[in-house]
Amino acid sequence: MAVGEGRLPPLLPVSGVRVATVSAGIKYADRPDLVLFELASESAVAATFTRNAFCAAPVVVARDHWQGDTGICYWLVNTGNANAGTGQTGEAVALQCCAQLAALSGVTAASVMPFSTGVIGEPLPLVPIVQSLPALLESLTSQGWAAAAEGIMTTDTRPKGGSRQISFQGQTFTVTGIAKGSGMIRPNMATMLAFLATDAAIAPDVLQEMLNECVETSFNCITVDGDTSTNDACVLAATGAANNPLVESTSGELYGLLLEAVGDLCTNLAQDLIRDGEGAGKFVEISVGGGARASESRRVAYAVAESPLVKTALFASDPNWGRILAAIGRAGVPDLDVRAVAVSIGETLIAEQGMRAANYTEEQGAAAMAGEEIRVIIDLGRGDKSATVWTTDLGYEYVRINAEYRS
Amino acid sequence: MAVGEGRLPPLLPVSGVRVATVSAGIKYADRPDLVLFELASESAVAATFTRNAFCAAPVVVARDHWQGDTGICYWLVNTGNANAGTGQTGEAVALQCCAQLAALSGVTAASVMPFSTGVIGEPLPLVPIVQSLPALLESLTSQGWAAAAEGIMTTDTRPKGGSRQISFQGQTFTVTGIAKGSGMIRPNMATMLAFLATDAAIAPDVLQEMLNECVETSFNCITVDGDTSTNDACVLAATGAANNPLVESTSGELYGLLLEAVGDLCTNLAQDLIRDGEGAGKFVEISVGGGARASESRRVAYAVAESPLVKTALFASDPNWGRILAAIGRAGVPDLDVRAVAVSIGETLIAEQGMRAANYTEEQGAAAMAGEEIRVIIDLGRGDKSATVWTTDLGYEYVRINAEYRS
Repeated sequence: MAVGEGRLPPLLPVSGVRVATVSAGIKYADRPDLVLFELASESAVAATFTRNAFCAAPVVVARDHWQGDTGICYWLVNTGNANAGTGQTGEAVALQCCAQLAALSGVTAASVMPFSTGVIGEPLPLVPIVQSLPALLESLTSQGWAAAAEGIMTTDTRPKGGSRQISFQGQTFTVTGIAKGSGMIRPNMATMLAFLATDAAIAPDVLQEMLNECVETSFNCITVDGDTSTNDACVLAATGAANNPLVESTSGELYGLLLEAVGDLCTNLAQDLIRDGEGAGKFVEISVGGGARASESRRVAYAVAESPLVKTALFASDPNWGRILAAIGRAGVPDLDVRAVAVSIGETLIAEQGMRAANYTEEQGAAAMAGEEIRVIIDLGRGDKSATVWTTDLGYEYVRINAEYRS
Repeated sequence: MAVGEGRLPPLLPVSGVRVATVSAGIKYADRPDLVLFELASESAVAATFTRNAFCAAPVVVARDHWQGDTGICYWLVNTGNANAGTGQTGEAVALQCCAQLAALSGVTAASVMPFSTGVIGEPLPLVPIVQSLPALLESLTSQGWAAAAEGIMTTDTRPKGGSRQISFQGQTFTVTGIAKGSGMIRPNMATMLAFLATDAAIAPDVLQEMLNECVETSFNCITVDGDTSTNDACVLAATGAANNPLVESTSGELYGLLLEAVGDLCTNLAQDLIRDGEGAGKFVEISVGGGARASESRRVAYAVAESPLVKTALFASDPNWGRILAAIGRAGVPDLDVRAVAVSIGETLIAEQGMRAANYTEEQGAAAMAGEEIRVIIDLGRGDKSATVWTTDLGYEYVRINAEYRS
């Protein structure tokens, strides 16, 4: 199950980036499970990682290498195994993958960032990965993005990716990105795995600020099940292959255009994760306005988005707005005056003044809930701060996927 | 579905309390849905209520009456309709129920505490309730507890209740209580509906302290779906019919004995709610020790207990301990050293030092997960503060119940 059509759009090559995908047989035979990104040597790289205290070994190693003095040349990504909950041994295996790739390609291990996704707690098998590295290096191509979008999938039912182009002073810049993720999704200052690149030349600190801003309003606004993954990571490379004058501040016009392109792409990829959320039959936007603080609007949005009772009502297309009120009421907003709260689904005003809206009928509610894409609009009536969260419904398919995933 | 046998034990009458149950036809015909407790005129009453900001009309009215100067003579309970999300009109209806009962029985409206449970957001029909009040008053009996345990059920599949007796200086004291609740269960300083009474004479402030202490370690330690109800309430009456010297402090021996009896009964009723949790196939105890603060142990226990990924793994009897680690890691414990964390299921050590325990096998894990009653023991390894939470698994039946409940 998944919401909408979800065909992968054409992914434009980014000058300075080559991508390869092979089947290494990490968990299953004949399934693409190992992806390599090669970045032009002068590339700047921005990154955000999971805040889960049990972060995976590749997260530890990738963050170390990224923070080091060496430039980043490769992103090495495997599926089929998260290399999480694997302790010191797991870190040693992640380091070995980097070292072996470095030896074959004549760089240092510290210029490789590793990423893993899949089952937690199993040892990551080193041999099939190492044996596949020569083939992986040989098949690098600038046209490799679409295959990589397939190669990083786990319980995803479809690949996610996109490209944006902007023109500035007669020059064309490209941004392309891919992402994976379907369950264990509630990013916290980071995201599921997402890989983006642009050919623009951007200074590293400026690039990091761009990524932070884009992630905050895209990947950090989605939730499938409230479970922050151990392996979340989002990286953005600027190869500089476009040879533009280096973007060195966040105030110029080119920065603004690139920010808009990257932000738009991130929002699309984040929404694609939700549309392909585990067992998703609905794509649901929860928009909370009228908060005294942005943090309380966000808290209310998440309380509603993660309520199992709201999510099962969404699954049933049942306009059970009492469950929405109950979730708002327990979100911990201090001194909330419930008589000021209003709730709409789409264009239909459902509840106001702490009760059912005067002209509301069940037929209207049922009609508003019938679609695949649903917008819940909540007005807290005590300020002008807002927050938006995207989520899914909760039905039998979510249970089936997560009860059967490892068995 | 429900866990264990769950037969209602014999419920002993409490001197000074009479109980009646009738079918008023509030939502369904021929189903007991209206319950009345009559308390001896000198009874002390303790109460705790939901902290949900969208608390229901009967909660507002019951709390008002309880805090007033008038003694409490009646608890009037209806099922089939929660009278929540009904605004001023809902409060007027709740007050009318109290006033009509008061007129028939010669007391003031302020001596009646109303309670409602059922669907949220529908107007509570006054007429069937008022028409049933004479029959209700006529059928009051000291033997009425078991029928009332049936009468307060909604999606519950079985009645919950119990009695305790203690002896003190040659005198026997009785405590009897009943409770209802199956979904929308994550009490916050309160509980689902629970009604308890003892024949001991206890001063009101001492009785309230007793109830607070008992609720904190029983009803406030359970969660089915993390959704705090709009209608939670727990009340405890001390009729004084035993004619003992008034218990006026929390230091005496009789207070200690009564506290233990009430606490034990509350814990049993709370666990009964979980065993009958919506769609429950497992009864799960999450015990977190080794915390630096009780609050962080509690936060970890709830993060694990409410993780949809952990709950679906429990449903599948799958020892997917990586999901438990991931939930611990995102619980927001500051500076958690994951290498100090250990996780056991029952007697089986599953993970330690941030990874799978050296001697652990999947067969051991599967065996530990096979039972209907599962204990997950987490040691944070950074202190001596602990917390325990009881919860259920999450399977198809939970989705079915909550997708179909209103349709």
